[in-house]
Amino acid sequence: MTEAFLKEWHRLVANRDLEALAKILAEDVTMGAPPYWDKLSGRPVVHFLLGLIIHTIEDFTYHREWHAAAGDAREIALEFHGHVGGLNLQGVDLVTLDDEGRLRNLDVMIRPMNALEKLREVIAPQMIEYLKQNGPDRDQ
Amino acid sequence: MTEAFLKEWHRLVANRDLEALAKILAEDVTMGAPPYWDKLSGRPVVHFLLGLIIHTIEDFTYHREWHAAAGDAREIALEFHGHVGGLNLQGVDLVTLDDEGRLRNLDVMIRPMNALEKLREVIAPQMIEYLKQNGPDRDQ
Repeated sequence: MTEAFLKEWHRLVANRDLEALAKILAEDVTMGAPPYWDKLSGRPVVHFLLGLIIHTIEDFTYHREWHAAAGDAREIALEFHGHVGGLNLQGVDLVTLDDEGRLRNLDVMIRPMNALEKLREVIAPQMIEYLKQNGPDRDQ
Repeated sequence: MTEAFLKEWHRLVANRDLEALAKILAEDVTMGAPPYWDKLSGRPVVHFLLGLIIHTIEDFTYHREWHAAAGDAREIALEFHGHVGGLNLQGVDLVTLDDEGRLRNLDVMIRPMNALEKLREVIAPQMIEYLKQNGPDRDQ
């Protein structure tokens, strides 16, 4: 289950395949995005934000991979590297799968600060526009 | 080896025991800090910055723990939560141990952005002062 998810995840990120992305998100997926504390909730908004991130970060490559120490195959940590606006970035995806092997929760953290700021600069206006059209706030 | 490190790590963070911290850092330890891209290098500066972080983040608690998928016991990922200046914060430590079970490299990522900004606000002036007194730049 974990292996199938990871294979598909790596493939769709490399190919920026947003159609495939929608299919591996649980309907009630949640996401702790790098800029915000409150979780984004539900497939449409998480799909939208992940799509933006995948399109904005250049040279997206995955590196180290960790599995839950307690042996729960649904918990994975993934390190990635990339560039945004010419700046180096390193990040981590903390992935939780549901029992069907779809993404149930994703927390994303990024360093350094200047790359995170640049990423927010690009995605925030598009997120605000999306939320204006699709819901009163990002908890919807 | 990993277990001994983790037990000591959790103990010293909870107790803000900076003397014990120095003892589990490799001499040539490196650190990818949340605000900077360039790695900090060497026990003195990493010890100083980690001490600042441990003292600045309140309610420091560790949560999920992951081990390298490839089975290398020297690679661990740790999730932590805390507060800084009244703001919630979630972070991850990507830990690499050396063959003696001491910290060889630590990459730290934090979300959300406002908590990271607040943390930097507190630690940056002290880091700048430290580097002025101890070396020409943070690569030393």
